[in-house]
Amino acid sequence: MFLARVYVTLKPAVNDPQGLTVLGGLHSLGYDAVDDVRIGKYLEIRISGDDLEAAEAAVAGMCDRLLANPVIEDFRFTLEPQ
Amino acid sequence: MFLARVYVTLKPAVNDPQGLTVLGGLHSLGYDAVDDVRIGKYLEIRISGDDLEAAEAAVAGMCDRLLANPVIEDFRFTLEPQ
Repeated sequence: MFLARVYVTLKPAVNDPQGLTVLGGLHSLGYDAVDDVRIGKYLEIRISGDDLEAAEAAVAGMCDRLLANPVIEDFRFTLEPQ
Repeated sequence: MFLARVYVTLKPAVNDPQGLTVLGGLHSLGYDAVDDVRIGKYLEIRISGDDLEAAEAAVAGMCDRLLANPVIEDFRFTLEPQ
């Protein structure tokens, strides 16, 4: 069994209206030291099996095919045995 | 300047319909080894200043007041100087 932690983030050049909205909210609450907010997704995926290389290939495939939009998003992940 | 990486996750007892939908999608794509998917938020927050303790207190306050819903979500964060 493996736990994959997947981080999906907008590419740096892509506008992030959700992040801008949160930035405005934080400024309204008085957190004036905040310069920038970018919002992405964080996924925890549990995968059965004990072949680390197969699990790595599977998670990379999942990200390419479903979890991230390659036009506007980057992804990275870590895998840990459980 | 600090970079805060904030992870907001649903509490374990809370149902995650978005995660269940992704789990179904992954099974449809043939990833049958996937047992569970939980989806959370990942935020990158850039904060000016060079007082680490003040930045930590600020980020914890932001999470409590705006970024996480304490009824259904947990949060954790890391801070790194930039």
